[in-house]
Amino acid sequence: MDYADIPTRPANRAPVNHRIDWPVGMRSCLFLSFDFDAESAWFDGDPRGWRHEVTVSHGGFGPRVGLPKILELLAGLELSATFFVPAWVAEAHTGLCEAMLRGGHEIGHHGGFHLKPSPDDMDASLAELDRGFEALSRRLGLEPVGYRAPCGENYSVFLDHLMVRGVKYSSSWRDDVFPYRHVLDGSKPGPIELPANYFFDDWMHGLIKGSGRNLVAREEVLSMWRDELEVTHEWGGITTTILHPQVSGRPSRFKILREFLEEAKELDGLWIANGAQITEHLESSPTFGDGPETA
Amino acid sequence: MDYADIPTRPANRAPVNHRIDWPVGMRSCLFLSFDFDAESAWFDGDPRGWRHEVTVSHGGFGPRVGLPKILELLAGLELSATFFVPAWVAEAHTGLCEAMLRGGHEIGHHGGFHLKPSPDDMDASLAELDRGFEALSRRLGLEPVGYRAPCGENYSVFLDHLMVRGVKYSSSWRDDVFPYRHVLDGSKPGPIELPANYFFDDWMHGLIKGSGRNLVAREEVLSMWRDELEVTHEWGGITTTILHPQVSGRPSRFKILREFLEEAKELDGLWIANGAQITEHLESSPTFGDGPETA
Amino acid sequence: MDYADIPTRPANRAPVNHRIDWPVGMRSCLFLSFDFDAESAWFDGDPRGWRHEVTVSHGGFGPRVGLPKILELLAGLELSATFFVPAWVAEAHTGLCEAMLRGGHEIGHHGGFHLKPSPDDMDASLAELDRGFEALSRRLGLEPVGYRAPCGENYSVFLDHLMVRGVKYSSSWRDDVFPYRHVLDGSKPGPIELPANYFFDDWMHGLIKGSGRNLVAREEVLSMWRDELEVTHEWGGITTTILHPQVSGRPSRFKILREFLEEAKELDGLWIANGAQITEHLESSPTFGDGPETA
Amino acid sequence: MDYADIPTRPANRAPVNHRIDWPVGMRSCLFLSFDFDAESAWFDGDPRGWRHEVTVSHGGFGPRVGLPKILELLAGLELSATFFVPAWVAEAHTGLCEAMLRGGHEIGHHGGFHLKPSPDDMDASLAELDRGFEALSRRLGLEPVGYRAPCGENYSVFLDHLMVRGVKYSSSWRDDVFPYRHVLDGSKPGPIELPANYFFDDWMHGLIKGSGRNLVAREEVLSMWRDELEVTHEWGGITTTILHPQVSGRPSRFKILREFLEEAKELDGLWIANGAQITEHLESSPTFGDGPETA
Repeated sequence: MDYADIPTRPANRAPVNHRIDWPVGMRSCLFLSFDFDAESAWFDGDPRGWRHEVTVSHGGFGPRVGLPKILELLAGLELSATFFVPAWVAEAHTGLCEAMLRGGHEIGHHGGFHLKPSPDDMDASLAELDRGFEALSRRLGLEPVGYRAPCGENYSVFLDHLMVRGVKYSSSWRDDVFPYRHVLDGSKPGPIELPANYFFDDWMHGLIKGSGRNLVAREEVLSMWRDELEVTHEWGGITTTILHPQVSGRPSRFKILREFLEEAKELDGLWIANGAQITEHLESSPTFGDGPETA
Repeated sequence: MDYADIPTRPANRAPVNHRIDWPVGMRSCLFLSFDFDAESAWFDGDPRGWRHEVTVSHGGFGPRVGLPKILELLAGLELSATFFVPAWVAEAHTGLCEAMLRGGHEIGHHGGFHLKPSPDDMDASLAELDRGFEALSRRLGLEPVGYRAPCGENYSVFLDHLMVRGVKYSSSWRDDVFPYRHVLDGSKPGPIELPANYFFDDWMHGLIKGSGRNLVAREEVLSMWRDELEVTHEWGGITTTILHPQVSGRPSRFKILREFLEEAKELDGLWIANGAQITEHLESSPTFGDGPETA
Repeated sequence: MDYADIPTRPANRAPVNHRIDWPVGMRSCLFLSFDFDAESAWFDGDPRGWRHEVTVSHGGFGPRVGLPKILELLAGLELSATFFVPAWVAEAHTGLCEAMLRGGHEIGHHGGFHLKPSPDDMDASLAELDRGFEALSRRLGLEPVGYRAPCGENYSVFLDHLMVRGVKYSSSWRDDVFPYRHVLDGSKPGPIELPANYFFDDWMHGLIKGSGRNLVAREEVLSMWRDELEVTHEWGGITTTILHPQVSGRPSRFKILREFLEEAKELDGLWIANGAQITEHLESSPTFGDGPETA
Repeated sequence: MDYADIPTRPANRAPVNHRIDWPVGMRSCLFLSFDFDAESAWFDGDPRGWRHEVTVSHGGFGPRVGLPKILELLAGLELSATFFVPAWVAEAHTGLCEAMLRGGHEIGHHGGFHLKPSPDDMDASLAELDRGFEALSRRLGLEPVGYRAPCGENYSVFLDHLMVRGVKYSSSWRDDVFPYRHVLDGSKPGPIELPANYFFDDWMHGLIKGSGRNLVAREEVLSMWRDELEVTHEWGGITTTILHPQVSGRPSRFKILREFLEEAKELDGLWIANGAQITEHLESSPTFGDGPETA
């Protein structure tokens, strides 16, 4: 591939739209979502990673402590969130996933072994997707409508495959604070995108293993989270979190999340919802644009 | 090349000058400039980068959200800025570039595919420069007078080529807070340099993709920006920003920029201007030094 | 090894337990522990590292300044801590280790030359363990009951070997804020784990050599430490520090540690203890679970 | 070299001493020192680095702006500092070095082309040292008594060579906050060490080029600097700065330095001095230990 092969058009073919009609009385939306990667975050890229027990134990904090504490917090605040769960996690931590469902939360598709999809290896990437559908169905009896790509990368070529299997929304792209409907090859309508906000990726503020980053204190994290929420609210957009129970379930991070959610609940006109609820609203909104069937 | 081949003289042959005569009543200058790289920032170095859609979507935030919001902000504050635009962006996002021009802003040259220039590959580097002139002319009907090198590297050997094509100022060097005129080989006068200030490179505070850096909260960024501006003002120099719509257009960063510009507008004796205006003033200033024609 | 070889079960086979009975009147526990690596932290991985004298001098700050100052601080506060000491350090700095013992502190096993254990090289890893036992015995006449793996990695396969040699607790895993007893192959009970908290790894906030991290100011470090302690206290867990005299003994870090410990001493219901004391308490607690002998 | 070849003794053979007799009325000492690397900081390791003009221009900020501003600041505060200057800089920026001397400052040896010394290449390393002596003598007529190794690494094997050429103190080691006299091979007394404090290496807080670090705001830098100074003062030690005009001469950093030095001047019992003054005091102090001649 050469530079001359790059098409001279926006990478994202979806029309730009800065006006979303949220439910009556609502000015903006907080899509509260977690990636429940557990141990799988630490062996993606190399299965031998499984053997490094202390490294993997960073992920183990999620199921042992973080997730139970977060489920308790959400129950107390009466909030419903989306948890994106890889196939391996659904199998290794089935009981915790059942607890999510009992708590009124949505479970989304998050790959099989938490492997980065790649169009250079379509077979493996599609197998990962199928592994996810299969495990969520077999273990939890559910057909996910939402998908977030593991490892922060995705390709529209996979969105087609996801739609065929019932996925209605994606939450991986970083290019907007307003939801949009993907436009796939041949101008075909794709799933809705609930674009993710990397300021709310707690991994970047609260983990040091495998990065050169610093751990960031509560005051700084809350300042950024408040500012993102405030201006997105002013603009009428969507604030999408990328939280991880293995991070936000740690004591000091839990305090940040608790404080943030308590404040968010008090924000007038903020609709806090899970991905399925938001997608259902947008699909029924006459101003959001054509749905996949009618385009 | 050996150490003995390094000449024992300052790398920069331009005379040092800490006294600039700004327009009457003005003590220092804020050169408000943005690099509108959009998606091109994410495929420089390797055209296959284009295919990584989520990575590239970091850049897509610029045209989808950041730039429109920033143009609105500047209009409200009645400020004119310079946007440095690569050829690919001028072609892929022509409408947004036209909006810049309608808003009274300057468009500067920022390469072709946002590739790092290199004297080891003169042909490719010069082709990049030509691609920029050609696209800005064909799509927008303009001949740029300003140039900022993509990827934070440049060589005086290219300044000659830029001057021949009409460029009057460069804004890439990091070695001063006072503008100067470049001195090229053979003591030939080069373009004016409006040196860039890396504290105002928002990428360093507000992006995590592809770096080990942390996201930095508003209080810290504003503290650094205020201090830079305050002391540069005290010294009578130039404060040159290196902002990116894909960063400073994000909600929390937009709030930082808005607050900073509102404060800057209130600073007595601060001249906020675009690069063409500053260059025109300096070229007509009797104390700035010989122009390129008369040297 | 392939992904299909990864067992679909939690990496950690120990049962989850969020309820610990601390000593009467105590709500949570602070396990105050230091890794006294001294110079050995800077030549792990390559013995030639020893030759880089300025790099190694970062470690030398521990024995020359940091450790004496910290021992003085702990004596003033009447606190007993655990110091994990590699064999090389016990031999090169025997006098300082004797001072620890005189001060009423515990010395734990921390490897031989501070080398990362690896199941791919069982012979070398076991030799490292033996080297540690041998040096602590010969130089200090002690048989350690606690072990922390050097370089932040460990494998349960080594826990067996440690138990045979008398080790009763490990403090390397990152997956909990409640102590648990390891479950080894064949469901065999292993040593107690006093899981370590990486927010209290001062290296991450107070060292720049060999990392891309920033030095972090007292306000931020204390904020994170207070939050970790506060929420762990609320939950009734254990706060385990990973401090290094070569870091926390530096002037500005010493001030952080002093302030933190003074505050911790005032926290009602916080039991500050060393690892041997905590392990002894847990082993005698009827609610903690079966001990290694009786399982 | 194998681990068994590492001697089991402290890397630093100098006796530990936490009690320094500073001049009458003085409790601790601030050794105010700068590394005036200018452009040479950016081509060490590879002479072709010289060609990357924008990268090198980071260094050019020192001679163009930073150094003149700092000399002015020091003159206003009536402080005398040490500037460590490589041979190349003494030749390329002779006038600025003369200005330092006129301002009452000391110039120390800082290598030739700012290359990292290495005992694996004794010839090249000694040539670097000789290049430094030669340039300082020829251009500035001075014989330096102080030496700081470029690139933060040094070896005691070079200290011998430096002493023969007249060097009385080194300021490269990181293992103490009290000065000491080096002990070289054969128990031979070496030069005095004025150990350097990496919290005062402004590069780590104020430069982003070539690192994954963040720029740090004034409040955080000042907090760390105040804490280091306060506790070192309490302990009666030495606070040694590693400042760079290309960093601390930048507007926002200049404000930090100015504020810090103004506060330091007000601190009762703090002796602010250059390296030659401190060394002269220590050499004449009966309690500091044997000098090199009498040992």
